[in-house]
Formats: sequence, C-alpha cells, structure tokens
Amino acid sequence: MLLSRSWRAVSVLLSEGLSPAWKQTRNHAAAARLDLRGIYPPIATPFTPQEDVDFQKLEENLQKYAKIPFRGLVVQGSNGEYPFLTEEERVEVVKAVRRSLPADKLLMAGSGCESTKATIQLTQKMASAGADAVLVVTPCFYKGKMNSPALVQHFTKVADNSPVPVVLYSVPANTGLELPLDAVMGLSEHPNILGLKDSGGDITQIGLIVHKTKTQDFQVLAGSAGFLMAAYSVGAVGGVCALANVLGREVCELEHLCVSGRLEEARALQQRLIEPNAAVTRKLGVPALKQAMEWFGFHGGACRSPLQPLTEAETQQLRRDFCSNGWLKENVTKLASHTGEASLAWFHPGSLVLIMKRSLVVSLQTD
Amino acid sequence: MLLSRSWRAVSVLLSEGLSPAWKQTRNHAAAARLDLRGIYPPIATPFTPQEDVDFQKLEENLQKYAKIPFRGLVVQGSNGEYPFLTEEERVEVVKAVRRSLPADKLLMAGSGCESTKATIQLTQKMASAGADAVLVVTPCFYKGKMNSPALVQHFTKVADNSPVPVVLYSVPANTGLELPLDAVMGLSEHPNILGLKDSGGDITQIGLIVHKTKTQDFQVLAGSAGFLMAAYSVGAVGGVCALANVLGREVCELEHLCVSGRLEEARALQQRLIEPNAAVTRKLGVPALKQAMEWFGFHGGACRSPLQPLTEAETQQLRRDFCSNGWLKENVTKLASHTGEASLAWFHPGSLVLIMKRSLVVSLQTD
Amino acid sequence: MLLSRSWRAVSVLLSEGLSPAWKQTRNHAAAARLDLRGIYPPIATPFTPQEDVDFQKLEENLQKYAKIPFRGLVVQGSNGEYPFLTEEERVEVVKAVRRSLPADKLLMAGSGCESTKATIQLTQKMASAGADAVLVVTPCFYKGKMNSPALVQHFTKVADNSPVPVVLYSVPANTGLELPLDAVMGLSEHPNILGLKDSGGDITQIGLIVHKTKTQDFQVLAGSAGFLMAAYSVGAVGGVCALANVLGREVCELEHLCVSGRLEEARALQQRLIEPNAAVTRKLGVPALKQAMEWFGFHGGACRSPLQPLTEAETQQLRRDFCSNGWLKENVTKLASHTGEASLAWFHPGSLVLIMKRSLVVSLQTD
Amino acid sequence: MLLSRSWRAVSVLLSEGLSPAWKQTRNHAAAARLDLRGIYPPIATPFTPQEDVDFQKLEENLQKYAKIPFRGLVVQGSNGEYPFLTEEERVEVVKAVRRSLPADKLLMAGSGCESTKATIQLTQKMASAGADAVLVVTPCFYKGKMNSPALVQHFTKVADNSPVPVVLYSVPANTGLELPLDAVMGLSEHPNILGLKDSGGDITQIGLIVHKTKTQDFQVLAGSAGFLMAAYSVGAVGGVCALANVLGREVCELEHLCVSGRLEEARALQQRLIEPNAAVTRKLGVPALKQAMEWFGFHGGACRSPLQPLTEAETQQLRRDFCSNGWLKENVTKLASHTGEASLAWFHPGSLVLIMKRSLVVSLQTD
Repeated sequence: MLLSRSWRAVSVLLSEGLSPAWKQTRNHAAAARLDLRGIYPPIATPFTPQEDVDFQKLEENLQKYAKIPFRGLVVQGSNGEYPFLTEEERVEVVKAVRRSLPADKLLMAGSGCESTKATIQLTQKMASAGADAVLVVTPCFYKGKMNSPALVQHFTKVADNSPVPVVLYSVPANTGLELPLDAVMGLSEHPNILGLKDSGGDITQIGLIVHKTKTQDFQVLAGSAGFLMAAYSVGAVGGVCALANVLGREVCELEHLCVSGRLEEARALQQRLIEPNAAVTRKLGVPALKQAMEWFGFHGGACRSPLQPLTEAETQQLRRDFCSNGWLKENVTKLASHTGEASLAWFHPGSLVLIMKRSLVVSLQTD
Repeated sequence: MLLSRSWRAVSVLLSEGLSPAWKQTRNHAAAARLDLRGIYPPIATPFTPQEDVDFQKLEENLQKYAKIPFRGLVVQGSNGEYPFLTEEERVEVVKAVRRSLPADKLLMAGSGCESTKATIQLTQKMASAGADAVLVVTPCFYKGKMNSPALVQHFTKVADNSPVPVVLYSVPANTGLELPLDAVMGLSEHPNILGLKDSGGDITQIGLIVHKTKTQDFQVLAGSAGFLMAAYSVGAVGGVCALANVLGREVCELEHLCVSGRLEEARALQQRLIEPNAAVTRKLGVPALKQAMEWFGFHGGACRSPLQPLTEAETQQLRRDFCSNGWLKENVTKLASHTGEASLAWFHPGSLVLIMKRSLVVSLQTD
Repeated sequence: MLLSRSWRAVSVLLSEGLSPAWKQTRNHAAAARLDLRGIYPPIATPFTPQEDVDFQKLEENLQKYAKIPFRGLVVQGSNGEYPFLTEEERVEVVKAVRRSLPADKLLMAGSGCESTKATIQLTQKMASAGADAVLVVTPCFYKGKMNSPALVQHFTKVADNSPVPVVLYSVPANTGLELPLDAVMGLSEHPNILGLKDSGGDITQIGLIVHKTKTQDFQVLAGSAGFLMAAYSVGAVGGVCALANVLGREVCELEHLCVSGRLEEARALQQRLIEPNAAVTRKLGVPALKQAMEWFGFHGGACRSPLQPLTEAETQQLRRDFCSNGWLKENVTKLASHTGEASLAWFHPGSLVLIMKRSLVVSLQTD
Repeated sequence: MLLSRSWRAVSVLLSEGLSPAWKQTRNHAAAARLDLRGIYPPIATPFTPQEDVDFQKLEENLQKYAKIPFRGLVVQGSNGEYPFLTEEERVEVVKAVRRSLPADKLLMAGSGCESTKATIQLTQKMASAGADAVLVVTPCFYKGKMNSPALVQHFTKVADNSPVPVVLYSVPANTGLELPLDAVMGLSEHPNILGLKDSGGDITQIGLIVHKTKTQDFQVLAGSAGFLMAAYSVGAVGGVCALANVLGREVCELEHLCVSGRLEEARALQQRLIEPNAAVTRKLGVPALKQAMEWFGFHGGACRSPLQPLTEAETQQLRRDFCSNGWLKENVTKLASHTGEASLAWFHPGSLVLIMKRSLVVSLQTD
C-alpha cells in the first residue's frame, strides 16, 4: 500500500520515458529493512610505491578495523580515491574487502559515475563483488544541469536496476553540488533507496530531510565526524566518517554516547574531534588522512598523483590539530635527537612514531 | 589573574597603536557575569503607512511579548531593518523598548556601523538609552579587507569604549562575511566581550567556537531557530531567533526541552520549526516575517523600501510552510466565501485572520 | 516619442503604487544628453591623524588632478570610503570638490544608501551641493531580497525624485550583489537614468548590456582599469578607475589609444596596468590605493578604522606590482643606506620617495 | 638557451621527485611552433536512440564543418560529453574524426582524467589515434587540494610524457576550479605546453596571462564565443567556442573582423552572438547546443543520461535567444497550421525546420 502510493508520488517527479524497470523493483521492499545504524569508516586505499593498489596493506588495515565496533565499511568513498582508480581496480578492492570482512558487517560500495549507464553497470558489478549496498554520488561535471528532475531520473534508474539497496551520496565540497531537498524527498519513496550520506553538513537541511522523509523509513548518515553529534540530535542514524579511519574507537564511542543520551560526555568528546576531523578532510584532505593513519598504526602512505604529499608545514599543522586535542603527544625521543635526523616523534597508546626528513621511519607497536 | 592572562593573549593579536582604553576596561569583569542564557526575538520594527516608526504598534507587540518567557529582546538586529533607520530612529526605538520592558528582561541593542568610530558612538548612545548589552555586527562593505586582524582591532576598540558588554554578531547571509574562528578566539578573551550570535549556522564551527573558548565563559547564541537544537547539542546557551517574533512560546518550549534533556520531544518540535523558520528568514526574508506576525496576532505590516511586499505566490508559499507543519489551519470561513472577497483565512489558537485581496482585513483575538 | 514608449515599458516592470513623480520626470529628456564619455578617478578621501576629513590635502590632490585630462571626478565611490563618512561629511566633501573643480569637468557624487528614502534625501543634497550626476549603488544588506523588481522599484523612485541624472552602480565585490540584466534593461528606459558603472567585470555581461540597451543611449562605464580596453571593445564609453587616482595620465592615455583604434599600443599599455590595478583594488584595497598615491605624489594617508594600514609584506607586494610593470623603480639611495633607516625608496618621474620604517618620510617633487 | 632557462624556472615550482622524463622532452621545441590561431568548434557527440555513439551522424556533421574556415576541431571537450564516454569510446571518436578531417586542420583531443596516470595513458592513446595536440582539463574532484604545486606537477608529468603538444584547459563552470595564474606562468615555460583554453571568461585574468607569458610564445584561446572579441582585444589568438557547432561561419567571421581591425562590424556581430552563446552553454547547456544544431542543419540529438532533454519552456527560451538576435525567424508555415500539429517552425538560410510536439519532424536543406 505504501509502495503504490510512493510509486505515484515519485512518478510525478519523473518526466516521460520512465523506465519499465520500475515494475520489477516494486518487490524491493525487503531492502527497506536493511538497518544502516552505526559508524562506517570510508576506508583509504593504500598504494605500493609504484602506485598500484597494495592489497597486503589493505588487508592489514582491515584486520585492525575488525576489532572496532563499526557497523561496516564504506569502500570507494571520496577518501578511497575512487576517481583515481580504474573500474577494474574499484571492483577488485571491493572483492578483497568482502573476503576479509566478517559477515555481520555491512559493505557499502561506492559505484557512482558521471553517466547513468556507467553507474548502473558498476553498481551491478559491485553487487556481484559482494557489496551489501551501494553508495551513489551525485554526477557533477555538468552541474548547471543537475537539477532535481535530472538527479531524480538518474538515481531512479540506478535504483531500478540495482540488485542491492542504494544510498544517496551528497558531497558538495567535491562535487560543487548539493542534492536538493525535493529530490531527496522524491527519491526517499523509492523502495530500493535506503537513505542518504550527507557530507554537506548543513544541519538545518539534515533535520529537514529527516522530517520530510519520516514516513519512509529513510536513513540519514552524517558524512563527517565534525557534525556527528548535531546530526544525531536532529535524527541521523549513523555516520560515514573519514576520521574513523584514524580514531575509529573514539568515533564509535561518540555514537554510543549520543545514542544512550549521555550528552555531557558526548559533547566533550565531539568537541575534541572537530579539529582532527577538519584536518583530515576539508583543510588538508586525503593526504592528511593517510598521514594520520600512519601515526595511529594503520597503513596510509602516499596518494595517487595529482594529490601531493603534505608539505612540512602542513604535516606540523596536522600534528598540532591532533596534539592540541589530546590525541597525540609531542615527544621527541632521545633516540631522535641523538641521531639528529628525526624531526618529529610522537607516542600514541600502542605505537611510537618517528618522522625522519618527511619520511616515516619507525612505527612501532608498543602494546 | 585570568584577566591579565587574557590581556596578554589579546595584545598579541593587536597591531601597534593599541588604545589606552584597555586599561580602563580591565574592570569590566562584572560584565562577564551577565548571563545570556535563553531565547530572544530580534524584534521587527512596525511602520506607519508613511513609513515612520509606529511606536504605538511597537508597544502593543511588546505587551504581547511580555507574556512569553523570553530571556530578553534584541532590538535593531537584521530583522529590525536597522540599515533603513536613521541613527536617531535606532536610538529612539531602543528607548521605547526600554520603557516598556520588565526590568528582569535583557535588552540587547544592535549598534554596529561600518566604521569603528560610528560604532563606538552608537554603542554609547545605546547604553544611555537603556541597553543591557550591545550586539555588534561585523563591518562588511570592504569585505575583502575584513580579515582577522582588522576585525579584532574593530571589536576590541568598540568593547574598550562600551559602557555595556558586547556580543559579537556574525550574519554571513547579509554581510557576505563570516567572523573567523581565530578572531572569535582572540576576542573571547576581552573582559567586555560576552559572547557571539552566530547566524551562519555552520554547526561544526559553532561546536569548535564553544570548544576553543571554554576557558573564557564565552556564550554562544544560535542566530536562528532552524539549528537551535543542534546548537544546544554542541554547547550553545540560547538563541536569537527571528521566528520567535511569530512562534515565541514554541521556540521557548524548544529551549526548555533541549535544556531539560527531553530529546525526543525536542526533536519533534525542532523539525516542525525548520520550514516556517526558513520561510521568514532565508527564503522570504523580513517581509515574510512581518506577514506571519500578522497571522499570529502581532503587528507586522510593510517594510521600508526597497524591501517589497510579498507577491501572492510568496504569500501562499509562506502559508504552506506554516500550515504543512501544523502551525496554521487553512480554513476559509463562511463569512469569507459569502462575500466572495476573501481569498485566504486561517484560524490560529487565539486569532482568526482573513486575507482579502492581499490586504489584511481582519485579525480577531478570539481568546 | 521615444520617452513615451519608454515610459510604458518601465511601467510594466513596476508593481502597483507607482509614484506620481513619474509625471514630473518626463521632462528630464535633457538629462539623456549628458555625455559621460571619458575617464573618472573615484577619488580617495584624505584624513587627518584624528581621522577627520583633511580638506587641505583634498584640495591639493584636486589641483594635481586638474592637470590630467579626466572627464570628471567621482566623489564618494567605494574608494572614497563613503560608508565610513557621516551624511554631513559626504555632502561637505562634494561641496569642497565642486568649489575646486573646473566648470567643464563632471562631478559625479555617490548618493546610495540602504533605504530608498535615505537615498532620495542624500541624492537631493548632492544635487544642491553641486553634483552634475549621482552614482547610486545597489542596496545590499538584504541581498536575498534585492531581486529585479525590488531594484527597479528602488532606482526608479530615486531617479523620479532626483534633480540630476542618475548613474547605476554595480560593485559585487563590495555588495555581494550583481545588478541583473533585466533590471538594467528596464531602468535604461527611464529618462533620468543615464548609464551604469559596472565594477563586476563580467565582460560578456557588459557586452550584452550595451547590446540590449542600444536604443536608449545608455552609457556604460567600466568600473576598473583592469578590463578597460576589453570594455571599450564591447561598447563601453569610459571608465571609473581607482587606478586613475595614481596613474591618471596613463589611464587617460589608454582611453585615447582605445578610442583612436591604436590597438597594439593600447594592448601593451593595458597589460601593464592590470597588476597595479589589481593591487590597489581587489587584492589590497583602499589602503593600498592610498599608499600608492603617496608614492606618486598625491595625498593618500591612512584609512578610517576598521580598514587597517598595509602590513610590511603587503606594502612590498604592492611595490612589486608597480615595479614589475615599469611604473616604479626600486632604487635604494645612498642617503637611505647611509642612515640605515630607510627600508625602501623609489624614483618616479617627478618624485622621489623614501619609506622609513613604514612611515612615509620624503616625497619630493623633482620636476 | 630559452629552454634551459625555462627548465630552471619550472624546476623551482616542482617539489622533489621530478620525473626524469624531463630530459627526454627538452627536444619538444618543435612543438612550440604549432600555430593554434583560429576558431575550433568543440564538437558534440551524436548518439543513436540506444545511446551508442552514432558515427554516421558524426561523419555527416564533419562534412558540413569541412566547408567552414575553422582552424580545426576540438574532440572530447566538455560539449562532447566526454565524462559520459568510456575510454574506448573517447579514442574511437578521435580516430573517426581523424579519418574524416582534412590534413590541414588541427585535431585537438581532450585527454584529461582525474589521475595523472590515467591522463598520461589516454594522452598517448589520443596521439596514436591521430590527435595533433591534446587538451587537458584540470583534475577537479579533490578541488580543495588542487593548488598550484599539485596542478603544475600534474600538467608537467603529462606534458613530459605526451608525444604531442599539450593545451591546458580551465573550465570553472564544470570543474569548480580556476587554473591559477602562477601555475599557468610556470607551465607556460614547459616546451611541450603550447597554450591555454580559458573558459572562465575573466577578461582581466586573460589579459594578465597573455602579459605574463609573452616571452614564451604561449597561446591563449577564448573558451567561449561570448567574450571572443574582448579576448582578442587583450591578446588571445583564437577561440574554442561551443556556438561554432551551430553558427560556425559567423564565429569565424567574428574572428576575421577582430584580426583585421574592423571593430565596428566586429562589435555588432559579437553582440548578436552573446545570447545564443549563453543559451547553448551556461544557461541551458549541452542539450540546448544539440537542439540548436538540429535547427541549423546539423545532427544534435539527445544527450546521454543524466543530461535531460530540454523542457518545452527551455526550448522556447532557446529559440527566443536565437530569434531575438536575428539568427532564426519565427515563421509558422501554412503546412504546419494546416495540420494543427506543428507548434514551431523556422527558416534559416539553407534549411527549413518544423517542430511538432517537441519532436523534430522536418529539417530540409533548402540550398
């Protein structure tokens, strides 16, 4: 009953030429029950020095992530450098993660491309590779023409043809485009569209999306740890947070505090996460995320070109944003000063890191 | 002890030529204790048909506001059309409000001008007129030059020379300028600067401001009802909300629910306020605020030119944004249909409103 | 005949309540004949160390400008710091300029305020003070509401009530608002609106404005020396150029080359003016304009607060932008190095300038 | 001698790890002599109803373009919908164009991808496919990190490894990113980088680029017909103009008038091209370009999804922008009104077009 009503409502938004695939998807109701609640790191893609995907290092990261109470992983989000991977690489990485990931954890795979056709093809490959759901970014090159009807048409066709549920993905900092409210409202009625990852961070808009889609069991995920608590306050159900690659336990702890109503503690923790989060996202980007991962015992490494390594000044800014919030200690060891080579060194619970002339030299697990 | 430390910290931010007034303001410590917690409507300015300030109608509005548990009133905020008033009018309105306002309610008066000199002069007049605090907007015409040092210099000189505490005011939608974090941090240490009204709504930024100023008893007020609950979640202490001119009790109720931790109820109420709030601010502006005030039993009326009355389509959009959230009922009465003249009519608890050919015809108090 | 047709066309754009003043202004046809062609410096306002207007220095600047083939002067444009002046000061400066200015030079006075009412009042005062025309900036504080109907209404009322012709003024870098094409087209038909100063610099838009108003004898002035030649190429008739305060002869020479079709020479000169122009406008603003004026033998001096003096680094950047284009020579004299006090010194044809510890020490006229 | 100086200058901009390929490319001096002067349409890609590339229609368009005095063609620019094509399709289209194109016309092929590695690979394929030069767009997904060093590194590596000369491509409307002046200046010194296609249209910036690269024989092409004359005035040498797909002769005529100094005629023609140009680019995009192509006797057809067909209102707006400038006549024929089916019909020199219920029915070549 709900679905047939929904069907009509969405139809209004669509121009003529509606795909007959709609009929086939009316039975996707099961999809609507996939529960997205919780925290997901949008995992980084480690590369070898030759810029190939380093599956060994990826596997080692996954084993560490397995100990953290994540709801699942996002593979091929913006932090996975997906625009730099070939289609084959994108699928291979998903397969590798699927092999490693415990069955009770969700694998959400990014499958967005610029054209509808390519997005559908990649979506189907991702499903075959083991994705539980796909995360589909707004096409953006022709941003002047990506109005609500075009976006509704695009996502509808993708959802019609996807074997797994679809999560919409709005990330204006990269795309220069915000998914409009009316498009989200229309799409929320599609039986194979589960929710939205909103990385824009307009908290008023997030609250309104929750409000206007509340009859649809539409699930909103905060796209950043910077506004995670605020997003919970207005009705989000989880987060896809770059910072969870680095401070995964802490982000999960924030989720736990928010959900259980321990607001004072939540606020104190949230506040300490804002600057490190900004550093690894908006301010310094993926290279900073990968650098911070190294400091915390994960494999980060270099990005593919044209993303450049951090400069020395940027590395220090990144360090400060973690240190000043109590996540790292500045602690130049005697070893370092003895050799006169290491310019930086930090202790973190469980690891000791020395930085020598901008190259990572030592990352010892100490517990 | 705190103050002398603060003094040094702020001094670093200032270039040479620091005003000697600093010395005199070291005793403003009392100011820091003014407690801003609560809700403030930034009141609208009613005009006569000749575009003069209508003090009679203003007084009638004030008497209605007196029954609502506001913490106080903001006079000459953006919604008061202050850029259209002469300096004399701005001061006269503050005097009128002061005469009417109960002693236990705060009067916060907007005193910002483009030049530092004019701002200081108007600040002093506002204090004489009875303001408990002044709200000082960022100068913005030369926005390319309003970097942190310029803004710190400006607000410091104003605070040095103000007899009453100063609240910073950042409203990018009007000024095209966001008060930068480092400027806020520096200014938070000034003994005569109490807090910030942030109308930008970047919730991550608001959380970070609270975090980085927490040793200073610096009080952050949400500048809009649209993100009020989220702002409370990250540490704001109150709100200056245009919508409180219309739905004052409801905004105060939202405050109450947030502060007392009744989050489910708060969320439900917050969500219903987003659209009416957007309608009277970002989407349709002051003319819509004043139109909505009429519907709810207050005097709104026309704005000064160049602000235009709402078009018929805009009026209907505004109406929908209130109706669809349950704040107004569409209910064309027999009277109206009988005459065939009234195009719209609503009941609101306590008032009956008929709209006849775009003019307000009847607004009956029914309780 | 043309006017009555125009009248009807504008009427369509206006909502009800059209001012009866229209009738009185039908006879403004003479206004349409005021020829704006040529170059105008938007003159800076010199201040005393106490931040009062320095009329003596203003007069000395005017005497120097009198030797340059300007078409006239703009008084109280953005570079005149008009938002920092009181209404009285704005009028007094215009009176002072009028007394000094030769009768054959145009005085265009900025009279824009946020409200229509205040703009009309100031416009009338400017006319009484001797302005030949007024330059009226777009109101901008409520920028979300300043759509074409509001702006058309505003400028129409001002033009209806102005004793002198009106020139529209669009300066998005300051106002955050571009005067839309359809508003310009409508307003171009008003008999008392002569033209537009466009500081936005969108050359396609400028060309289109010329094209769409060509039946109206509507005169477009480039608002910056940076795109002066390009503006001439698409049909502009002159320029109001901040840089003309500093390199007045050179800007007039560029005009001459453009008008007489000496394109190679014009291009070479235009290119050398772009960087100095950017430095005194977009990049470093009015403080840089005033600093550069000092180097070239004019009185610049400090701005009113909150505009700050240039930092040392900014001063050097400004200097480089003049030097690298051949307008100044870096030439530390023996005198300077002897004393060890002067950090900078330049020769310019006709003047020698020494800068000592950020204060101007010597500016000798050498011819 | 010039090259070794250039080499040093660029080296400064590069961080460590400079590719040894530089050595190999020092001999690209010949490249610098490729003369880009003239007009290029960035050709559209026709599709079959199944959304496959329609090579037959492409060929027919090419034969029509062969009669127009273009300098060459751009294949896989933004108007070619390259983000929607697979790599294989991109290369196949270039091969097809090469087969058809007369030897004296330049083929400039778009080869930009997000990663440096993919861009190099595609660049090499494009060269093998017969491109005379490649047009390389700025990577843009990680726009926050695409600062000058990253962009210089990217383009340098591409140019080092390209068998054919490289033309930089800045198109902020699509990428949200402007190629900064300092990056252009550095890259202009690379022996295998010939010039820049600038679609941003900031005429001051274009003039400055010409000025600051004048020792490098760096060729600037206007990226739009809207500012073509202005670009010539400040030193551009040609244009890559979407509108040339539709009004190719007219754009070439504008070039001719500009180059031969017939400024009055050029201005009149330029002005008439602004609105049609805006309609097929910024306002209505590629679907409008393809619609207009149909009206003028070329194959346009539908875009790939998610680009949508024009709505009826958009089609009419497009039509008006051509009609009001004299490029099409509104002329409903008797035939059309007789059947009562055709809603629109135009004559253009050489063709008669009837539009019936939004489908193109007849496009007769009449000469």
